[in-house]
Amino acid sequence: MNPRLFSFIGGNGSGWSVVSIETVVGDPLPAVERVDIVAGAISQIPDGGTWILRGVTSNDRYVTRGEKESLIAKQAALGRPDATHAALIPIRKSTEWWALTQDERRAIFEEQSRHVEIGLKYLPAIARRLHHCRDLGDAELFDFLTLFDYSKADSAAFDDLVAALRETKEWKFVEREIDIRLVRAS
Amino acid sequence: MNPRLFSFIGGNGSGWSVVSIETVVGDPLPAVERVDIVAGAISQIPDGGTWILRGVTSNDRYVTRGEKESLIAKQAALGRPDATHAALIPIRKSTEWWALTQDERRAIFEEQSRHVEIGLKYLPAIARRLHHCRDLGDAELFDFLTLFDYSKADSAAFDDLVAALRETKEWKFVEREIDIRLVRAS
Repeated sequence: MNPRLFSFIGGNGSGWSVVSIETVVGDPLPAVERVDIVAGAISQIPDGGTWILRGVTSNDRYVTRGEKESLIAKQAALGRPDATHAALIPIRKSTEWWALTQDERRAIFEEQSRHVEIGLKYLPAIARRLHHCRDLGDAELFDFLTLFDYSKADSAAFDDLVAALRETKEWKFVEREIDIRLVRAS
Repeated sequence: MNPRLFSFIGGNGSGWSVVSIETVVGDPLPAVERVDIVAGAISQIPDGGTWILRGVTSNDRYVTRGEKESLIAKQAALGRPDATHAALIPIRKSTEWWALTQDERRAIFEEQSRHVEIGLKYLPAIARRLHHCRDLGDAELFDFLTLFDYSKADSAAFDDLVAALRETKEWKFVEREIDIRLVRAS
């Protein structure tokens, strides 16, 4: 099994409690009460499970060395004790996006959309882990799963972050997006 | 199943006949007599099979729009009637390579190693399909599987192509490479 693989199980079992599931664009995902986040593959939906999403963390696709150093200097890892709030945002981009060349995607990602620059404003308050799904062997519903966590006090800042990204040119290539807000189960 | 997934089954069953398996660097792969190339996933090694390699075709990672237009103008698809010779070259790159940022990898790939420029010289004689393995859910032995095909008359040109690439700075990051030469089974 790929050690960078994570599974996200939506259902009524264990894991984070779902506060809301908003369909930003495209088809909705079935409503669930809990999302369990586990390292590794879950091939069968467990009892109480409704759906499974999977993704692998991978090498950076767009950031330059300068941008990466800025990110590393400010960013925090997931799982801080006060990070009681989280969001799982599955996204699929359009065929048009994937047909662009690297230089075209990079130009939209940063020079036109300021994806890194926007994200940097919210560090270290918002921690983030990006999972790639598009090149898994199974056909997946999404291209990316991004998991964020933050304190209750930073919830409004997280709303601002996603709102700013959704205004960008890059987001014109997003054809499906679900915004799942979570709180740590007590 | 991901429609871009291909499986390469090494064994003594059906498919292309193996002419040679050369270990260029790193651990060898077990010798086999045949390599069968099938669209889709093969989860169990079939009777007569020794190993399975899997990979997905994906979006371009490094080429610019200008380079892509040059490639498209010259390149041929796999499977031409006179393409009786083929090569399957599985490669794994080092941890150091994957820790580089996009701009660093691009600079090594093209500005320092001329990967596209070298490849262009051999088009349309050598056709090529690149499969990615690193972000599959299963742990794979390699990061990439490249399949080439060409006529018997172009076999020497193919030797020149791989020799030129192995001299580049990019290849200093290749820690495992197997060169499997094939001919179409009569």
